[in-house]
Amino acid sequence: MTEFIPPGTRFHPLPSPFAMKRGGELQGARMAFETWGQLNASGDNAILILTGLSPDAHAARSADNAEPGWWEAMLGPGRYIDTHRWFVVCVNTLGSCKGSTGPASIDPASGEPYRLDFPQLSIEDAADAAHEVIRALGIESLACVIGNSMGGMTSLAFLLRHPGAARTHINISGSAQALPFSIAIRSLQREAIRLDPNWNNGVYDDATYPESGMRMARKLGVITYRSALEWDGRFGRVRLDQQSQDPDQPDEEPFGLEFQVESYLEGHARRFVRRFDPNCYLYLSRSMDWFDLAELAGGDVLTGLARIKVEKALAIGATTDILFPLQQQQQIADGLRAGGADAQFLPLDSPQGHDAFLVDIERFGPAVAGFLADI
Amino acid sequence: MTEFIPPGTRFHPLPSPFAMKRGGELQGARMAFETWGQLNASGDNAILILTGLSPDAHAARSADNAEPGWWEAMLGPGRYIDTHRWFVVCVNTLGSCKGSTGPASIDPASGEPYRLDFPQLSIEDAADAAHEVIRALGIESLACVIGNSMGGMTSLAFLLRHPGAARTHINISGSAQALPFSIAIRSLQREAIRLDPNWNNGVYDDATYPESGMRMARKLGVITYRSALEWDGRFGRVRLDQQSQDPDQPDEEPFGLEFQVESYLEGHARRFVRRFDPNCYLYLSRSMDWFDLAELAGGDVLTGLARIKVEKALAIGATTDILFPLQQQQQIADGLRAGGADAQFLPLDSPQGHDAFLVDIERFGPAVAGFLADI
Repeated sequence: MTEFIPPGTRFHPLPSPFAMKRGGELQGARMAFETWGQLNASGDNAILILTGLSPDAHAARSADNAEPGWWEAMLGPGRYIDTHRWFVVCVNTLGSCKGSTGPASIDPASGEPYRLDFPQLSIEDAADAAHEVIRALGIESLACVIGNSMGGMTSLAFLLRHPGAARTHINISGSAQALPFSIAIRSLQREAIRLDPNWNNGVYDDATYPESGMRMARKLGVITYRSALEWDGRFGRVRLDQQSQDPDQPDEEPFGLEFQVESYLEGHARRFVRRFDPNCYLYLSRSMDWFDLAELAGGDVLTGLARIKVEKALAIGATTDILFPLQQQQQIADGLRAGGADAQFLPLDSPQGHDAFLVDIERFGPAVAGFLADI
Repeated sequence: MTEFIPPGTRFHPLPSPFAMKRGGELQGARMAFETWGQLNASGDNAILILTGLSPDAHAARSADNAEPGWWEAMLGPGRYIDTHRWFVVCVNTLGSCKGSTGPASIDPASGEPYRLDFPQLSIEDAADAAHEVIRALGIESLACVIGNSMGGMTSLAFLLRHPGAARTHINISGSAQALPFSIAIRSLQREAIRLDPNWNNGVYDDATYPESGMRMARKLGVITYRSALEWDGRFGRVRLDQQSQDPDQPDEEPFGLEFQVESYLEGHARRFVRRFDPNCYLYLSRSMDWFDLAELAGGDVLTGLARIKVEKALAIGATTDILFPLQQQQQIADGLRAGGADAQFLPLDSPQGHDAFLVDIERFGPAVAGFLADI
């Protein structure tokens, strides 16, 4: 399966072998990343961005890649994360197919893609791999780690496993442990992929890409990334053009697309499939289910969070998020505060659900900028 | 495809032909129903129950069927809907596979199951067909129509299209129009079925039943029928027994079931597939998307609701319902009140989401009984 690496991506080799938390190790693995801005002489202006499941390292346009990035409105000269002030690093997560080593990468032992021979992947592995990049860039201590969604989990693992690696933390729509509703959604997404005959236990190529399974998985993802409230206003019961004349007119295809919301999901699915490797999706999805700071700490979640030592923290969430609900960001703030941090919880009244941090920049941007202005 | 008809089910032939709202007609169709209690001499103690998508007419045990019904705790002698007082009728919805005519029934024109030759099914057709049963039973005017979930939609269509057919109404976790979040969920459920190669454009038999598509559809259903809150308490992060010893132990099957919540979904799916006809599921599912009282009334939803004339009404919902959210029951109460009814909205703080009316009988039972005591 092809990897999908944006131009301008930089790479850092991981120590070889790189031991994985749940067993096994990687030989000759690498991490993909991009940077913006300049590290200052005292090395204290570095920010690390850890991403959700699907983004690459191209968070914003750069000298080497003029295409807008996935967080373009947030990051750049004069933007909320101002690259005149900050040296910003975004890593593509370990296990992805966008430059960092993952199940779609070539296994040096066989000369073939790892596929399901990739060792079991945990959020902790992704955190350790990101830490290697930071060390390689000569950063002793980050000014801030910012993690979104899955990256919020990765941030907590990073901070717990690498004390002193960051002075502050912004956790956006993240969680300290996976809960059963989100586990159930992800389990069903994986089942959709595994049920696609083309998945074939992970052995497919471009000609036999498990497209229908990935479409289902992506559509279910989009449903849980947004919110009913947003869609009531955005789509309501509006039908696709060809049917707007007479809603009672029999369909050409009785169970085909009829409502705008169905077409919206279809569009999202089309833009996603064939641009993400299904095995990587399975590995990353499962790593989120496994993540549990309580388990890591050998206690409860608050105990785990309280073992993280940062000076200052901000946990932001959207009131309409059903996948990483607001209580989870409240818990992160409470736990980090119990560990001694000056930690704030900021619920934002965004209609866009879990994805709000990607689209409601009007609310999330000032929140991030306000925190960074004070550190 | 087999139909699934409980013993003791009674049948009423529909007028033949029976014209369908979106075009086409049924020849020799029938409705399945059960009754409990006795119609009194003045004929004013009858209650009609209209169901959600999947139930049959066997709401509770009866003289002809000692098996517990799907609303056993609610209905019976001395229960919340007390069959000492009330003559209760429950109909299996038109389009189902549990006795009433639907896509799995034999088309008299061909001698084969209708499959996709069944005419397009609307909630209004189901309402009209239920009304035929009520007339055949000699009921001039129902004391109450009670509709749950999809049956809440059917109730509103019944009341709008058959003025005077009922004096009061209890709408439970229902809605006056389908909104985009629930349309999206149902669209994805249908896509899962249609993607199953065994579905084969509706042409399958017991040996080629599209099981994996139905499993996916059911699991997604169950996720949206319950609530994250309930599952946090009920499942948390508890693992299946075989893995409880060491959560980091590599799985036998890397993407197999590991958490209790996954096993719970699997159990629900197993109990559902092969007991429901996939084509019937598709038709009933789509009929809900199409339902819109605003469209029926040629105005907005409140206008449509206000055209319904009942003396008294109660709209009940669960605070944790994401599929038919509470605002929709609030809207029903507001609209019926605008039409002159003494209408109350009752939000119940049940953790079980949309399914609460089936399981949280402690809350829903007294609410229903309280309303019935005053009519």
